[in-house]
Amino acid sequence: MEIEEQARPVRRFRFAGVSAGLKAVFGKEDLGLIVADQPVAAAGVFTTNRVKAAPVIIAEERLRAGRLRAVVANSGCANCFTGRAGMKLALDSCAAVAKQISCPPELVVPCSTGVIGHLYDLDKFRAGVRTAAAALSPDGLGSFARAIMTTDTVPKLASTTLRFAGAEVTLAGVAKGAGMIAPHMATMLAFIVTDAGLTPAFIRRALLHALPESLNAVTIDGDMSTNDSLMMLASGAAGHRRPSARDLANVERAVAAIAGSLARQLVYDAEGATRLVTIEVRGARSSADAAKIARQIANSPLVKTAFFGCDPNVGRIVAAAGAASVALEPERLELIIGGVKVAGRGMILTQALAAATDAMRQREFTVRLELKLGKASVNVVTCDLSLDYVRINAEYMT
Amino acid sequence: MEIEEQARPVRRFRFAGVSAGLKAVFGKEDLGLIVADQPVAAAGVFTTNRVKAAPVIIAEERLRAGRLRAVVANSGCANCFTGRAGMKLALDSCAAVAKQISCPPELVVPCSTGVIGHLYDLDKFRAGVRTAAAALSPDGLGSFARAIMTTDTVPKLASTTLRFAGAEVTLAGVAKGAGMIAPHMATMLAFIVTDAGLTPAFIRRALLHALPESLNAVTIDGDMSTNDSLMMLASGAAGHRRPSARDLANVERAVAAIAGSLARQLVYDAEGATRLVTIEVRGARSSADAAKIARQIANSPLVKTAFFGCDPNVGRIVAAAGAASVALEPERLELIIGGVKVAGRGMILTQALAAATDAMRQREFTVRLELKLGKASVNVVTCDLSLDYVRINAEYMT
Repeated sequence: MEIEEQARPVRRFRFAGVSAGLKAVFGKEDLGLIVADQPVAAAGVFTTNRVKAAPVIIAEERLRAGRLRAVVANSGCANCFTGRAGMKLALDSCAAVAKQISCPPELVVPCSTGVIGHLYDLDKFRAGVRTAAAALSPDGLGSFARAIMTTDTVPKLASTTLRFAGAEVTLAGVAKGAGMIAPHMATMLAFIVTDAGLTPAFIRRALLHALPESLNAVTIDGDMSTNDSLMMLASGAAGHRRPSARDLANVERAVAAIAGSLARQLVYDAEGATRLVTIEVRGARSSADAAKIARQIANSPLVKTAFFGCDPNVGRIVAAAGAASVALEPERLELIIGGVKVAGRGMILTQALAAATDAMRQREFTVRLELKLGKASVNVVTCDLSLDYVRINAEYMT
Repeated sequence: MEIEEQARPVRRFRFAGVSAGLKAVFGKEDLGLIVADQPVAAAGVFTTNRVKAAPVIIAEERLRAGRLRAVVANSGCANCFTGRAGMKLALDSCAAVAKQISCPPELVVPCSTGVIGHLYDLDKFRAGVRTAAAALSPDGLGSFARAIMTTDTVPKLASTTLRFAGAEVTLAGVAKGAGMIAPHMATMLAFIVTDAGLTPAFIRRALLHALPESLNAVTIDGDMSTNDSLMMLASGAAGHRRPSARDLANVERAVAAIAGSLARQLVYDAEGATRLVTIEVRGARSSADAAKIARQIANSPLVKTAFFGCDPNVGRIVAAAGAASVALEPERLELIIGGVKVAGRGMILTQALAAATDAMRQREFTVRLELKLGKASVNVVTCDLSLDYVRINAEYMT
């Protein structure tokens, strides 16, 4: 399936991204709006963090009905750990949108990302909503993508078209990431819109199906966010006939491909990252075992600093694997970095390390660990731990 | 109990630390020897990593008998992930020591720390053992401490004396740490010697009793080592009478205090660390819950970079707490940083943040999270994630 890393219009949706003055930096876009011209089917999946942001609590509740008119998202303030005041603020923010587009407030869901523990200014937000409503456009998804960025340096977009029940339908996705990214759910904000006609139950299933190998298979710093939200809205405006099982399978694959593209883009633009590294664990007894080992490697500060230093540090990788508390036989391990076999039968192949160092100078490479114990395998995408990660996070103040 | 951070002589033990040329840097001490003049009671606890170093496998096996004459430790090479050659090397190393001190090789245990995946030169090691045997001295524990350092910048020593069954007995401990430090067992090399007369079973119990609140309660980078070893040797040379239950309880406390002092010294000298931070989680439903939350906070890269930046980032701390997958009610949380209450009833106390920033400029401070759900509490000691941590680990090559 061909995924383009750009926005496309999707029938019945309009988008906007404007500057409402919520961010400390003057003039940066920080308020985004997705509006459907009439109620559309929607579903979402959210963070499993026990400290949930106010907008997450409201969005989860409202999405139970499976119908939406609008999503309003802001960056610069997460509206999390803000008590009752935060709940009221998120509800008032939705009401402001509902008033602009003339719909019940229950058909609007909020999303926030940014610093935890603070409230944004409601008057500024309301003024921003008015500006955004006036700016709504079928071509506005790129502006929306910029409006949800925090320490992201580039917007993340992914789109595709496919034949679906006799018509051509479009899927367009957008996400923000950068920090507090770890596999436990969506771990960021991400939105997918389509003009296919899908039920909320199907959308939810498609999202859950897409997660394990896309947004849940990436990790930047192992820190689970309080605001992670992945939502999908389906307008049904493409005018197709009743979809067959095969049509639905195709669109499910498309959702997974969009989510996968967004996930890769998140890691590519991770805070301070200079390397995108796919950790492939193969030959495990079970997928659960493989995932534990892959994540232990992908989140190890020592492994990630070695990636930053282009150091094919076999020891740190196998030590991380051994720390995962699952079955492992060191004397069977085989390790391949960037296509270069650097360890076999439980020993380092010293003469191969120079070639592996060269392979690690690429922007992207793969670390494959063969356990030779079974048939299960799992991929996790991670990045390096660089000086800039520390600089960015030591300076990004409360 | 008063613990001095220095070495003391302990009857029947002699120590040495010499340069055997095992480290890349010429002239640095890298081989240490602890020798008891006759077999003494001993026990140890070791890493739970599935990738165990050859010396760990041998030491675990030999300590089952509960008797030792000598420990030989080297830095610069972990002798881990080295297959059969590594096992042979560790056995030959012990044999070299046994020959020098005229005892069966089974009474010698090896310990290695340093880079994983490589072997050291046996001839250099043997020559080093001869030099070390000639240098053995009751006052040599400081030299031994320097010989086991890797990226440590200072030796870690702790000693105390106490009345025990009618005599004065001494306990002296030594450790090395720096990186690959996480709570799952000893997470480093540490040795305690005493002239009290104790059984191997008692020693083992005392070590297991000491661990949860000392060496298992610290974390530097969450990376579990392949070589973690904590051993204790007891000579019984103090000439005391049969100990009472109270004597044994006293010595158990002394072991815990020595281990606690060494643990703190490890974090104080952690790679690149500029802050020592005690994470206190109070009011949890269970100790297990409290420990999960404390470790999630203590290992969060975002929290640790905030410590580096003197940023009282309530959001990152509560988000890490929420990610621990245990019971938590955000609206009850209270957070105190360096004695300054920065959050209560699920909200940040913004006006307190400046005072908290000041408190975080100290070399040591405490972060206390009150859950208000129960009575269990746990402390974990951690450090910040600094630019130097990344520099050190991006450059410390294979």
